Formats: sequence, structure tokens, C-alpha cells
Amino acid sequence: MASLKRSVLAPGRFPRMPEIPGVSLQAARAGIKYAGRDDLLLVTLDRGTTVAGVFTRSATASAPVQWSRKVAASGKAGAILVNSGNANTFTGSQGVADVRSTAAMAGRVVGCRRSDVLIASTGVIGEPLPVDRIQRALAGIQPGRRPASWNRAARAIGTTDTYPKGAVRRTRIGDTDVCLCGIAKGSGMIAPDMATMLAFVFTDARLPGPVLRTLLKEGIRTSFNCITVDSDTSTSDTALLAATGRAANPAPKSATAPELKAFRSALKELLTDLAIQVVRDGEGASKFMTVDVTGAASSSEARTAALAIANSPLVKTAIAGEDANWGRIIMAVGKSGARLLQKHLAISIGGVTITRAGERVESYDESEVTEHLKGTDISIAVDLGVGRSKSRVWTCDLTHDYIRINADYRT
Amino acid sequence: MASLKRSVLAPGRFPRMPEIPGVSLQAARAGIKYAGRDDLLLVTLDRGTTVAGVFTRSATASAPVQWSRKVAASGKAGAILVNSGNANTFTGSQGVADVRSTAAMAGRVVGCRRSDVLIASTGVIGEPLPVDRIQRALAGIQPGRRPASWNRAARAIGTTDTYPKGAVRRTRIGDTDVCLCGIAKGSGMIAPDMATMLAFVFTDARLPGPVLRTLLKEGIRTSFNCITVDSDTSTSDTALLAATGRAANPAPKSATAPELKAFRSALKELLTDLAIQVVRDGEGASKFMTVDVTGAASSSEARTAALAIANSPLVKTAIAGEDANWGRIIMAVGKSGARLLQKHLAISIGGVTITRAGERVESYDESEVTEHLKGTDISIAVDLGVGRSKSRVWTCDLTHDYIRINADYRT
Repeated sequence: MASLKRSVLAPGRFPRMPEIPGVSLQAARAGIKYAGRDDLLLVTLDRGTTVAGVFTRSATASAPVQWSRKVAASGKAGAILVNSGNANTFTGSQGVADVRSTAAMAGRVVGCRRSDVLIASTGVIGEPLPVDRIQRALAGIQPGRRPASWNRAARAIGTTDTYPKGAVRRTRIGDTDVCLCGIAKGSGMIAPDMATMLAFVFTDARLPGPVLRTLLKEGIRTSFNCITVDSDTSTSDTALLAATGRAANPAPKSATAPELKAFRSALKELLTDLAIQVVRDGEGASKFMTVDVTGAASSSEARTAALAIANSPLVKTAIAGEDANWGRIIMAVGKSGARLLQKHLAISIGGVTITRAGERVESYDESEVTEHLKGTDISIAVDLGVGRSKSRVWTCDLTHDYIRINADYRT
Repeated sequence: MASLKRSVLAPGRFPRMPEIPGVSLQAARAGIKYAGRDDLLLVTLDRGTTVAGVFTRSATASAPVQWSRKVAASGKAGAILVNSGNANTFTGSQGVADVRSTAAMAGRVVGCRRSDVLIASTGVIGEPLPVDRIQRALAGIQPGRRPASWNRAARAIGTTDTYPKGAVRRTRIGDTDVCLCGIAKGSGMIAPDMATMLAFVFTDARLPGPVLRTLLKEGIRTSFNCITVDSDTSTSDTALLAATGRAANPAPKSATAPELKAFRSALKELLTDLAIQVVRDGEGASKFMTVDVTGAASSSEARTAALAIANSPLVKTAIAGEDANWGRIIMAVGKSGARLLQKHLAISIGGVTITRAGERVESYDESEVTEHLKGTDISIAVDLGVGRSKSRVWTCDLTHDYIRINADYRT
């Protein structure tokens, strides 16, 4: 990660995460953009590992995304190669060739086919990938020797992140204990559309490819697809779920098999945990915001309204200024396109009801809301008054530091 | 207007604007929110004046918008009452009653029916309108006595505006000379959806209501609907066009009548002039940006892509930082949902071609773009490479001053 000041919203400490049998992590310094830090991660996966992936829907998706989409579709993989500092995006036919050759190099190191290597790159857009540096770094890696910790792996994939992001959940499939470990990166350009910047989740469970795919898609829907930092969607968004099968549980037939119930909720929890860590590291963030929309005509309209609030520069700056300017929430839901009834519209901040039945409540005491806004974890709840659907979205405020970080990122 | 520092992008000076026969302007200090300045404008319109209006599509539109929509639909009006400092939005049944009573007061002053008075209010959302103050201010106005200049009128309707906005065009309908004068306000919460914050255009031409409606709608499409400051749409957006008929030209039968050709383009010019003035006063703006998208599959996709660039916080902060970070333009068009072909995508900034055929051009010299970015008027052009449709959008950059203005607007 870059040497930025640790976010004030950072969680206490990196969790203790066990090894996942069948997964080996190795980090290296390739010097792609950042000096004096790891910027390359090679994950070796046991033979027989199944994978699923969810990727950005951007029409300018990177060369690695286009490559990995195909690998993930096959349902199996032998390795994941991740670099930070260069996104290999909009690099034309050279970028495509560079993905192919780095996949081949990684395949040689771990002993798998090029077509079984997943690739993920984030960083500057439009610059050619320095393949020679990656090659040199890979040449220094010996599989199985000096494996990296999850913490080190999470640091290696970061760009403008100010802390490493990891999460662990232990659960059971039938009578078999299984474990899930995940790492993620992301801080700016965060408004995932089917995935986040990067998230990699590993489990020793045995899960067929199609089952894995359904589980990941379902888990992303209420986690990474419900966060936003700045409404800008990355060209590199990639979320991968890999299952080594070393726990040797009987393979479930479908994603809805009853023995998968606990696993499904553990996966959702873990993905949500990682997604929230990304938001808490939002560029320049000083407040973490949870936006709940209820009473919507459909869950997609609930999400639209929640994202309109979460992405509104005027709402985000009001929260940064600890200003109980709830009129901007009225504005945001109004412009969102979600159906609502003004006369039923209810808004509360920090649990304090501000409006009900289309008007400010008479007893409303702004000082209670102002007190809540002085904290770092802000909750906004809106009922649209037209239906029963709901959605929860997480975001952060918009501060001077966001401008500072992004007005001189490359210079 | 508030006493904010004049925008560095402000035009040279307020234009010389003649009186429009049949239109009388009067400004007053009601003390609604701002002290020591005009905050009320009363426009008296000659009997027989036709009007058309275009309003925000926000689902939380203000009480005045809901009222004026009905008045404008009738095609005629006797007065326009505008106040700044209070938006009378989300004020429930009291807000509706307050519009009705202030319309009645204005009607008594100018001698027309309550139902012929258009109302427009901008300012804080959710606070009750101080009707008594408006009443006192109106009581001091005598129609025809001490009319206000266009400059004074434009100042009276401003909120966070840093300069008054006016425009004038002289043209002919058939053999008759006619004149158009317009004023506007707006600075933040600018992403109009069918209108801007506030714009009032007056002409002495004789134009039937239905013709006026078509002309206004057509003019708004390529002016106020093509600007954005911060992607936030106001609850008060109102654009009105009033024609007193005093020029006594033969009334045209339809908006497409050949004798209206010059008038139509004069109106478009005037509306675009005002819209650009609003953007140049964008909160905290230090750069004015023109975004041209060509080669789109449809004009609506061209506009979608252009707005995605214009609203991207990462693009806007890069421009503020004078950073030739064109990768963020790639990101923005990618996320927009507009169809494009990466291998045909072409981007230029300040006339310098950066990418062609899906790659950075070999001869690209960043220093030329950096030189352009040091200026205040920035042009971005993108060809999506899939069709023949195009769109132009105007916006401004995102700076520390936007955060400063909006993190402590109410306090």
C-alpha cells in the first residue's frame, strides 16, 4: 500500500486468519510503481480447486478482467497473479499480449497451464504493464518456500488503501468444519457494479464450480454491490471465490442444498465485512455512513434511492461538516427516480425521527442529530412510503482529503 | 446574492439589457434569510401575456413548483413572484397554503387573480416560509413605481451565486423586431432535469401559449438539460418564458412556422448563454469544462456518456489538479452504460489527440495537454466509435472550495 495516513475509520487490527489448506500465498517486490514495498501477489491453488468470479460491467474493462472472466467461466484455476500500481487498462493489443505472457510465467512457477491462471491488476490506467519487472519478481519465487501471511498478501495488493483488509469465518457444511478467508483492496473509484475493486476469498470446502458461482453472485448482491465511495466504477473490479476441497465434505448438489445454509450466511457475512472495510478506507473519509431505505416499491428502487443519497455530493459534504441538513436527503431521494409519496416520506438520522407524513415533526430537536453527527458512524434511514421493499447501502463522507488525494494522484 | 467571492470564471460584466414592453420588475428586501440585500422579485406582466414553464422532475418538487406547473399549463400569467433564502420544499400542507396566500398577496399588488401568479422559491429545504415578511415587503411595492433593472432583479433571486446572470438577444419575427431578455440563478445542486434552478426569459413577441411551450422545451433540451455542477438535482428547478405580445407581430401558427426560425435560434442562444453562466458560477469552480461526445449509438447515449464524464468526481478533481489523467475519462465512459467499442475509442483534451483505436497514440505529448489544463476553459472530446450521434455538456471542476461551501452552508 501507499504510505498514506491510516484512515480514522480503520478497524482495530487485522484479524487472525488461519492457513487454508490448498492455498499458498507469496508476495514480492516487482517495483511496478511503488518502491520499497510488495506489489505482486502469487496465489498457488491445489489441483482440483474450483473457482467463481464476478467482474466489473464497465465497457472499458481491463485486459486482466477480460482474461480472468474466461478463466473463471471454466470453473477451475491453478493460480492467481495480482499486481498493484498498473491496471493494464486501455493498453490495446499489447495489454492483451502482456496478460497472456504474465499468465504463462505464473503458470510455469506454480506448474499449471497458462489458461488456469487468473490475473488481477489495479493502478494507473493507460500505461503499458512493465512485464520485465513482473518476470524478474516471479523468477525469485519458489512455490511453497517462505509463504506470505494474509496480512502481507492484503498489503501487497493495495494501492491508495491506508490499511490491509482481511476477514475470516469458520462454519460447517453438514458435519465438516470449513473455513473462509478473504482479502480485499479498494479506497477510491469505488461504486462496484457486480464486484468491487479486488476481493479474493478462499475456502477449504469442496464446492462444485456452478454452486460456487451462485453463492458468490448472491453474496456480492448485498455486499460489494451495496457500497460506494465516489460513484466512480473501476475498470478492474474483480471478486474471486476459490474452493480447494481439502476439507473433503460431501459435495453439495446445488447452492440451495440445506447443508449449505450456514456456509451461505458465513460467506455473506465475510463479503459484507470486507465491503465495509473498503468503505471505511474511502479516500479522505472521516465518517462511515449506513443508509437504509425502506417502504420502496421494489428492492431495486430501494437500492436506487439509497445510492442516490450515498452518492450525493451535497449529502456527503453535509455529513462531513456535521451539519443536520436533512433537506439534502429530500433532494437526493427526489432526484433518484424511485417512486415515493411525499406525504408519507419519513427520514431519521441517528435514530432521531426528523420528518413524518411529509413534514418535519413538531418535536424535532436538531441538537440530538448534531450530537450523532459528531461521531464517526452515521446512520440515515428513509421510508419512501409506497411499498415493502428495502435496501442497505454503505458509504463515507466527502472531504477536503478526497480532493487532496485525487487532485494530485499521479503527480 | 450571498457575499461570496466572485467566481474566477465569471463573465466580464452584466450585459446591457433593455426594458421589455409589458414587463415590469420590482425588487425588495423581505429579510427571509439574507440581511441587507434584496431577496424578493415581483414581475408584473401585461394583460394578455402568454407563458410556458419547464420544471424539475424531482419526486420531492417544492410547493411552488407544484403550484406554478398548474399556472403555466394555463398558458397565461399576470405576475411572477420569486424569493430567495427559503425553498418552501417539504413543508407539507402549510407550504401549500403559504404558496396560495403569497400568490393572492402578489395578485392584489399587481391586480390579477391568484391563479395567474407564478411562484418560484429557492434556498433552504424544510423550513416554513416566513409569509409575514413577504407580506410586509409586498405591501411596500407600488406597481410601476421605481422599477428595478435586470441586474438588480438577477441579484435579488440569487442564493449562493457569486454574480448576477443575464442575457439578451435581438431578433425578428417576420418583419417585426422583437427582443428577448433573460435572467437566471444557480450555483450548487445543479444537474437540471427538464429545467435549471431558476431561469426567467421575457420577450415582447406575440406568441400563443402552445407555441411558446414547444419553443421553451426545445430550447431547454440543449441548454439547461446539458449542464451539471454536482449531479444533484434541485427540488425547485423552474424555467419560465413569458411573451407580452407588445411587439404586435402576426401570431405564428406553430413553433415550426418559417418566420420563427431566427427567434428559435435566438432563444436557444440565450438559454445556452444563461446555462453556461450558471456553470461558470458552479460552487468552488476553478475550471469551466466543455465535454463533447461523438460517435454514439444515439443522442441519449451520447448525453449519458458526456454526463458520466462531467459528473465523475475523479475526472473533476483531476481537472482541478491540472492533471492529464485521461484514464479517468476511460473509466467514466466505461461505467456510463453507453455503448462503445474500445478499439475505436478516441479521446482528446484541448484538441490534443491522446488515444485512437483503443490505445494511446505513440506521438502523444502529455506536456501539451498539461499546458491546456493550466487555462480556465477546458475541452474534452470523446468519440465512442459506434455511431453518428453526439452531445455537448458543460460542467466545472470539483475543488476544495466546493467542500468548504457545502460542509458549512447552513451553519
